[in-house]
Amino acid sequence: VSAGRVGEKHEVVFEPFGKRASVAHNTPIMDAARELMIDVSTICGERGTCGKCKVRVDSGVEQLGPLKPAELRHLLKDQIDGGYRLACVCKVRGPLVIWVPDFSRQGKQRLQTEGLEVPVNLNSPVRKYFVRMHRASLEDSRGDDLRLLEALKEQHGLQVQDVTIDFDLMQRLAEVLREAAWEVTAVVWDDRRIIAVEAGDTSERKFGFAMDIGSTKLAGFLMDLATGKVQAVAARMNPQIAFGDEIMSRLTYAMKSPESLKELQAVLFASTGEMIEECCGQANVRPSEIYECLFVGNSAMEHILLGLRARNVGFAPYAPCFTKGLNISTRGLPRLGVNPGANIYISSIIGGQIGGDSVGDLLVARLLDSDDLLFDIDIGTNTELAVGNKDRVVMCSVPSGPAFEGMQIRHGMRAATGAIEKVSIDPSTLEVWYRAIDDVKPIGICGSALIDIPAELLKAGLIETRGRFNTSLLGDRRLKGRLRKGSDGMEFVLAWEEESGIESDVVITEGDIRALAMAKGAMRTGAAIIMKRRGVTEGDLAKVFVAGAFGNYVDPESARTIGMFPEVPIERVVFVGNSAGTGARMMLISKEARRRGEEIAQKVERIELALEPDFPVEYAKAMYFPHMNLDLYPITKEMLLRLGRISAASPPASLPSASKLHGGGVGL
Amino acid sequence: VSAGRVGEKHEVVFEPFGKRASVAHNTPIMDAARELMIDVSTICGERGTCGKCKVRVDSGVEQLGPLKPAELRHLLKDQIDGGYRLACVCKVRGPLVIWVPDFSRQGKQRLQTEGLEVPVNLNSPVRKYFVRMHRASLEDSRGDDLRLLEALKEQHGLQVQDVTIDFDLMQRLAEVLREAAWEVTAVVWDDRRIIAVEAGDTSERKFGFAMDIGSTKLAGFLMDLATGKVQAVAARMNPQIAFGDEIMSRLTYAMKSPESLKELQAVLFASTGEMIEECCGQANVRPSEIYECLFVGNSAMEHILLGLRARNVGFAPYAPCFTKGLNISTRGLPRLGVNPGANIYISSIIGGQIGGDSVGDLLVARLLDSDDLLFDIDIGTNTELAVGNKDRVVMCSVPSGPAFEGMQIRHGMRAATGAIEKVSIDPSTLEVWYRAIDDVKPIGICGSALIDIPAELLKAGLIETRGRFNTSLLGDRRLKGRLRKGSDGMEFVLAWEEESGIESDVVITEGDIRALAMAKGAMRTGAAIIMKRRGVTEGDLAKVFVAGAFGNYVDPESARTIGMFPEVPIERVVFVGNSAGTGARMMLISKEARRRGEEIAQKVERIELALEPDFPVEYAKAMYFPHMNLDLYPITKEMLLRLGRISAASPPASLPSASKLHGGGVGL
Repeated sequence: VSAGRVGEKHEVVFEPFGKRASVAHNTPIMDAARELMIDVSTICGERGTCGKCKVRVDSGVEQLGPLKPAELRHLLKDQIDGGYRLACVCKVRGPLVIWVPDFSRQGKQRLQTEGLEVPVNLNSPVRKYFVRMHRASLEDSRGDDLRLLEALKEQHGLQVQDVTIDFDLMQRLAEVLREAAWEVTAVVWDDRRIIAVEAGDTSERKFGFAMDIGSTKLAGFLMDLATGKVQAVAARMNPQIAFGDEIMSRLTYAMKSPESLKELQAVLFASTGEMIEECCGQANVRPSEIYECLFVGNSAMEHILLGLRARNVGFAPYAPCFTKGLNISTRGLPRLGVNPGANIYISSIIGGQIGGDSVGDLLVARLLDSDDLLFDIDIGTNTELAVGNKDRVVMCSVPSGPAFEGMQIRHGMRAATGAIEKVSIDPSTLEVWYRAIDDVKPIGICGSALIDIPAELLKAGLIETRGRFNTSLLGDRRLKGRLRKGSDGMEFVLAWEEESGIESDVVITEGDIRALAMAKGAMRTGAAIIMKRRGVTEGDLAKVFVAGAFGNYVDPESARTIGMFPEVPIERVVFVGNSAGTGARMMLISKEARRRGEEIAQKVERIELALEPDFPVEYAKAMYFPHMNLDLYPITKEMLLRLGRISAASPPASLPSASKLHGGGVGL
Repeated sequence: VSAGRVGEKHEVVFEPFGKRASVAHNTPIMDAARELMIDVSTICGERGTCGKCKVRVDSGVEQLGPLKPAELRHLLKDQIDGGYRLACVCKVRGPLVIWVPDFSRQGKQRLQTEGLEVPVNLNSPVRKYFVRMHRASLEDSRGDDLRLLEALKEQHGLQVQDVTIDFDLMQRLAEVLREAAWEVTAVVWDDRRIIAVEAGDTSERKFGFAMDIGSTKLAGFLMDLATGKVQAVAARMNPQIAFGDEIMSRLTYAMKSPESLKELQAVLFASTGEMIEECCGQANVRPSEIYECLFVGNSAMEHILLGLRARNVGFAPYAPCFTKGLNISTRGLPRLGVNPGANIYISSIIGGQIGGDSVGDLLVARLLDSDDLLFDIDIGTNTELAVGNKDRVVMCSVPSGPAFEGMQIRHGMRAATGAIEKVSIDPSTLEVWYRAIDDVKPIGICGSALIDIPAELLKAGLIETRGRFNTSLLGDRRLKGRLRKGSDGMEFVLAWEEESGIESDVVITEGDIRALAMAKGAMRTGAAIIMKRRGVTEGDLAKVFVAGAFGNYVDPESARTIGMFPEVPIERVVFVGNSAGTGARMMLISKEARRRGEEIAQKVERIELALEPDFPVEYAKAMYFPHMNLDLYPITKEMLLRLGRISAASPPASLPSASKLHGGGVGL
């Protein structure tokens, strides 16, 4: 430190916020950020041990000096190449331009319901027209229908020749027109059906509800169809979980009898109705102001939603009951509470289990609009994977199970107050850091931390690539007994009882890790198979889009380290959050997006994994962290070598036996 | 009689049958017809006193010699001019060509359900396509929807881009396809909706049901949509009669509460369902093979059928709830028992009380296709009248009441076994002749006879033109006490108790005659007003179409004599039977007819009689038989003069007082 510089100040710019600070020489970057109220993540209290405060230095990196030991423990090669540093250990010694990536920011919203917004032409099929009609009189006794249609034509230039009035509306129309003294707003769907008529001028108010039906989570969005803006968001667990965590168990239940299918349908509608009510309450919207509902979900969810034959999507040959999107009246479905004339649109299905949620994904990631080769993964109980570009897109769906959604995990829970959402283990001291949602005492572990944990355990040498705990560390003093043999095999304590909000330690078990390995292994297998079919390798991928309910709270480095998706430089990984939900919102507010969705469903080439002879072998290889073939993960391999977790000479791991592969929760 | 001709034979040709007989000199024409099994009407036993055996002699009339006294008593001037003679009094004395008019034939079918058939392009919107689909397999796991649509495209060239599958069907489609081993028949409505899918090849079988909802009578037709042929016919009384004979009383009931409207709707649907079942039983058709139902009725009937606000059509300003035809799914209506995917089409409405039945009338009478000026009257509880040609048609509806349907008449009954259907009174002997349906003992009087009776009483001098019995004949020996004072005013015995099938005489009362006068007066008033508005007189009319449930059983001469419609030469009067029902059948089997029906509803100019200042005066004049102004009925006047019923010098009758006019059953 040159003494002459004491008292000197340097300008630091933080992007993408465009915020500037003039800070004293030697101020840690972290402090500069805090001064500007920028929420750079940390869970170790800026001790340099959690590695969560990664920032990219876009200008002035030479001022920061060589990488510190802490940085060498936490930064991967592609991050180092890209100019990443840890904000807590680097001090400002000259002007800097700093980029704070999404994954180093402390988010506020835990259950990822919003996603990347894609510009879309605002063009809802729901239109409203206020008309002042001629009063019926002895001199002008036209029928109410014609009187309304002709007013729409005269006052709004509507082509009314083929416009029909819904019969349910017709039964009330005469009263409505007269009570409104002939000044009404007509709600017209797709320029061809009058679905509602309201007293007075209500043309400013029109709403829609878009819903992503995940196997585990439901995400609903109340949208203003006039502005395209989200008005309110609601999320909850899929109530069908009571009938089985996995899709297959629900489909089996649904096939028991027509009544059991109806039961699954009914609980879904009941929850949807509650979410609509909740959103309307938040946004001060009347449910009757909702004129369209749009649903996306995997094929099983869409079939159950509509009460369609579950066997079609549950068993070979996996031919769905429908693939084209459906427009249905509220009359044909259980009650939702929206306007009785509302149109219910259920997204087109790509095939097999690949449903409207994937249509949403592809609308957001736009693979079919791209010259570059892109990869898309939507992580969930079923995980959908796509690869390709405008010439050809290949997709598959894998039943990865709900492990990453906290199900089937000893202390798993959804992303709510008290859930551990980030975990870090210092590779040298083996100190454990975590952050719980809302900074309260931890009561469980949610999805984003379930991705961190195997990655951190791996880097710390606590598990080997097969996911087994390193029993040679059982008595290691640094661990203070965190690694131990529990009632159900080996386990690792993340939070001790005294610091937790429950009456026990918060642990991760070897069984949990196996469940996570199987889940991520299924995903990675799908990736391998579609990439092979499409004839691309990791190096060809311009972008990897990662979608899913936990979305932006996931550490992309952790996800890559455990091998959830093919290894590409971290900058090419784009978290798009709940893109199924985003796609649903796009389709709700735009006829063009809906049409594009139908095209996507027709164009995408689908692989049925059950038919792939490569599947068992690929699956066995993919169950490793990150993969049996470490050469597919050169960045991770380099880190593990650097940390001494593997030796350059170590032989490739051997495949587990096939029987072991098929004993787990991933039934194909 | 020249003796030389005895033993000579002459050829007699009977048209329109094209039958020929070679008969002995001096054979009565009636006997020649009987020999050929031609059913020329008679009710007096060929005594020359009933006048029902009128035939037109198209060739050889000069052989018959001058008119006999019997003929002078029964033939009107236009008939004499046209070559009409009585078949029972004329004898063959040379070759003859005889035309037997419809009105002189003994019909078999009493309740007029069929009508004049108009050539129509057979083009039902219901189409059936048998397809052999590719079985779903792991290699071809297209959705069931796409698989079906693509099969329709490949095997039938259907443009399937915008074809949708009804959601109700979608819920069963998967099962149906698989149970049928992928060989199915798709039922497509209007090339845009798949409404049903059936196992195997059922493409030959498609049926529809057309229904005319009269205020008093229902007529239903089961149609083969593949051939356009009637398969079965059912008729019954409108069960709503229990809620009031008149439309107004039913509308008033319907307005009491939503439940009372539903009640009226329910009884109508129940009867319709029974008629469908009855027709299906007759024709060996399954109700599920009915894919479309089409309803016509006056506006009130159509509104009640659909459960629409009755006040709209019951009260000023008489703006109906709808005027464009409606396509409705079975789901929106009470049960009919037909295929659940069936389309229900309710005909367009012209306006006020003028509904789809009039659309049917005009499709049959084709006023809007005609260069000539035409007149159309559809007699019923409400009577609709139209006049005009392709340039302009003016219409009105009058609430004429159900008197001519036998309601409100002491011994009135519907046209069933035992109903007196024809009546004749010899103007000189005052002998009474009648024929009862099925030639059994009479138990009442049906509509066609209710038209004969005032005409015959008038010609016989038993009533004067105001409809009052001629009390000077009370003691006339010829009458043998038939004219008498009854408990309820004057009455005339048509059949004595000993010859009847009931325990009393069958009589017509002065009250009955007043009811008939009011009914026919209302009709004639409508005619006067539309003709005035259209600017035409009797002489301009190329044809007078007379429609109604009793149809072809009415004696056109009697109808004209009592002044039901404007007087034109009898040859210009065309009985078209139930043309509303015929129109319904046309629209059921032809998309073009349906489109034409919609155009008719838009084009016709409607007069609301309640708004016509001329109505009371015209009505008062029209209550006379045939009219207060006999100059409007020169043919009838000539006959009455010839028979001595009026004198050339008699002054025009004076108008009854207005209060008397409005005391009756015709409420406007």
